[in-house]
Amino acid sequence: MIELDPSLKTPLYEQLYAALADEIRRGDRAPGTPLPGRRTMAAQQGVSVNTVDTAYQMLAAEGLAEPRPRSGFYVQKTYGMLHTRTPRPAPQPAVPAALAEAPVPLFDLSTGSVDTALFPARSWGRIQKELLYQRPELLQRGEMQGDADLRGEIAQYLSEYRGVECTPGQIVVGAGIEYLLGCVAHLFGGNTVAIENPGYSRTRAVLGNSGIACTLVDIDRDGLSVAALEASGASLCYLTPSHHFPTGVTMPATRRAQLLAWAAEQPGRYILEDDYDSEFRFDTRPLPCLQGMAGADGPVVYLTTFSKSLAPGIRIACMVLPQSLLARYRRDFAAYANTVSRFEQQTLCEFMAGGYFTRHLARMRLAYKRRMETFAAALRAALPGVELDGVHSGLHFLLTLPRAESETAMVQTAASHGVRLRGLSEYYMTRPELCRPNTVVAGYSALKEDDIPAVAAALAAAWCAFL
Amino acid sequence: MIELDPSLKTPLYEQLYAALADEIRRGDRAPGTPLPGRRTMAAQQGVSVNTVDTAYQMLAAEGLAEPRPRSGFYVQKTYGMLHTRTPRPAPQPAVPAALAEAPVPLFDLSTGSVDTALFPARSWGRIQKELLYQRPELLQRGEMQGDADLRGEIAQYLSEYRGVECTPGQIVVGAGIEYLLGCVAHLFGGNTVAIENPGYSRTRAVLGNSGIACTLVDIDRDGLSVAALEASGASLCYLTPSHHFPTGVTMPATRRAQLLAWAAEQPGRYILEDDYDSEFRFDTRPLPCLQGMAGADGPVVYLTTFSKSLAPGIRIACMVLPQSLLARYRRDFAAYANTVSRFEQQTLCEFMAGGYFTRHLARMRLAYKRRMETFAAALRAALPGVELDGVHSGLHFLLTLPRAESETAMVQTAASHGVRLRGLSEYYMTRPELCRPNTVVAGYSALKEDDIPAVAAALAAAWCAFL
Repeated sequence: MIELDPSLKTPLYEQLYAALADEIRRGDRAPGTPLPGRRTMAAQQGVSVNTVDTAYQMLAAEGLAEPRPRSGFYVQKTYGMLHTRTPRPAPQPAVPAALAEAPVPLFDLSTGSVDTALFPARSWGRIQKELLYQRPELLQRGEMQGDADLRGEIAQYLSEYRGVECTPGQIVVGAGIEYLLGCVAHLFGGNTVAIENPGYSRTRAVLGNSGIACTLVDIDRDGLSVAALEASGASLCYLTPSHHFPTGVTMPATRRAQLLAWAAEQPGRYILEDDYDSEFRFDTRPLPCLQGMAGADGPVVYLTTFSKSLAPGIRIACMVLPQSLLARYRRDFAAYANTVSRFEQQTLCEFMAGGYFTRHLARMRLAYKRRMETFAAALRAALPGVELDGVHSGLHFLLTLPRAESETAMVQTAASHGVRLRGLSEYYMTRPELCRPNTVVAGYSALKEDDIPAVAAALAAAWCAFL
Repeated sequence: MIELDPSLKTPLYEQLYAALADEIRRGDRAPGTPLPGRRTMAAQQGVSVNTVDTAYQMLAAEGLAEPRPRSGFYVQKTYGMLHTRTPRPAPQPAVPAALAEAPVPLFDLSTGSVDTALFPARSWGRIQKELLYQRPELLQRGEMQGDADLRGEIAQYLSEYRGVECTPGQIVVGAGIEYLLGCVAHLFGGNTVAIENPGYSRTRAVLGNSGIACTLVDIDRDGLSVAALEASGASLCYLTPSHHFPTGVTMPATRRAQLLAWAAEQPGRYILEDDYDSEFRFDTRPLPCLQGMAGADGPVVYLTTFSKSLAPGIRIACMVLPQSLLARYRRDFAAYANTVSRFEQQTLCEFMAGGYFTRHLARMRLAYKRRMETFAAALRAALPGVELDGVHSGLHFLLTLPRAESETAMVQTAASHGVRLRGLSEYYMTRPELCRPNTVVAGYSALKEDDIPAVAAALAAAWCAFL
């Protein structure tokens, strides 16, 4: 029994963390053994599950414990390796999957991964190598907004493929949407932003951290509701109009026009348009973005990322600032170095200039389309009565089983059959009662084509009671 | 004559920018021709020099004009290339230096560059290539604080070489000090930070942008004065104790102890220690950092960068958070992806684990020490009466000519003889009258050894009246 003292200034989760860390360091808890379940520990110690969870997360981040999906936390097996100052031992061989105690998901249908087999490693690597040997000036600091030639390539691409209206001078390259959203937030200090519900909780975290008040606005069948936006009193609006995350709704033209009218109605109103995965639309050519409808001087900040089109591990995103924000941005960020390595900026620049990027996108679109069709067909065959929504764009769709017991039951039985996916209600930051019942989000970007029959079979077995 | 209308809501600099941009786009101002000098334009238009400068900077960022050092702004020669949607023309050959109209500095003594010839391109490139082909999992998203094995290597390095006391779990890897300072600022919202004067104006910009009130505190011969810090009322203190930027002062042990006592006196007081270039100390082993004196749980956030030890174009920096800030940091930034590409994280990790990094540092230290000694000797020979300060550490020193007319005269005559350097007073954010007179900051990190006699000769010619 660990003794916690609520009268101390140190929070309970830190006390619990410190006590467990001591036990692990002393060897009182053997490497590889499980920590008590969160609810058990919470009941034992008379604290909330959240307190236990925070303490466990701290142990994990410290390298003292290891989370195992659907199974809880275990004392780190390799503990000791990182904490010694003696010469580093040889890397430990990975634990073979068959020996691991906990059921590890075999198939991952979460969003946010990519199929690494589609990455153009050969051409990317060749360009990268040439730049390293031939352009030593790239070791020096570059331009604050990103290298001018890369911004030129991006401007041309966004204009041709996404209907963005901008000059290279309006583009800011950065190491991820979170970083760029943080910069945008600075420009809007004191404002309130409306965020789609359901939607990206990440956006709320970033804008909230940066001092912007966030208010959640429900979506309807056409996406963010302009009436609800008006009622929210917000002067900023963050949205994903091309392919709403996670429902997949594409905002129709009339709703877009209403949104732009809302923004034009009062000075200081702005739309933050996140065009995160619009490269992947399989039925028709993607709709042009809101930024293009509004024009280069319109009240729209356009954001997009290369995480889907290249890889999430290569941290390149960009935004297009309207002229009205540009001078202030440049003044306030003049002292900042760009956050993307110049070698990666220039590798992307050459990759785009040489035509590799658009060919790579065309290849990926084809591969993902085929995978989506195969996967959807396999699911429809294996799961009689299943409803699939939002299949024509993006890299995930919604899967509804009308006769399921509950969304939670769907997620849990799938996990116990080796398939990891999230329920739609998990994306609701408020009012989860509005969520369509018995619906999960199925991402297929990291799913191997050969695995599709096995995934469909696993889900059919998991959900046999719901069919 | 351009017509500006002060009664409009559009700021004057934007009006001026827009009018000039139109003229350039219409071809009324021929590519390659100079724009009027800033003072001339300001007088013509009846606006401030600052207004003109902002408009010119906007044109430059737009790619419409091009700044040339010590010469002003010119209409962009290659304008048009970036603004067409027709296929991209072949890249324009660079303008040979002999044809350029303006005197371009031949020798750059500014700080912040590195000698690209010292970069270990071969081993770096080999590791990078292996990772790209052999570890496709690096394409996926990594850990929020940075990859655990890289953090392990950094913790070990900082412990052995800088006396930092921390576990890998306390380390946060990020794409540059500015990004990391922005994260730190979030943790200290509502506080006031004391910043060294003279010092890094960048720090003031970043912390100010992030909502932290900044107050400037004068340094004395031992660095930041604790009495002045007390008097400032600040609860945070940003400083460069190992090698004050730009004066080169190393803070002695007693002053360090006083600073830690200041921090310990009240809860919520923290020191932000920027150890930006302490790898380069030539006389004695570097002093251990403040963070190590305070211990892993002490009130110090330690920041350092790989910009000097590797290259500024590769964006890797890191910070060490004390336990007291870690839980809050992890909670508030849980949704953020790390800002450094995983390939570059892992290249650095292998580079450190394989022993390349410490060997590379030893080689650089030797090369820079030799360069410093050669340069200092050449300057002492060429400039009778010159005083050099802060030669024993870092990659720059102070150069004083007691009999010079003024600092400005030193900077301008050097520039007209092809040597770019900055005056010490330029680093004073307030009270420049405290600045030691007739002193410039001479960085030698990007100076080729073969160029040293020519630089010394150019400065002797530039400053002959001051000797």
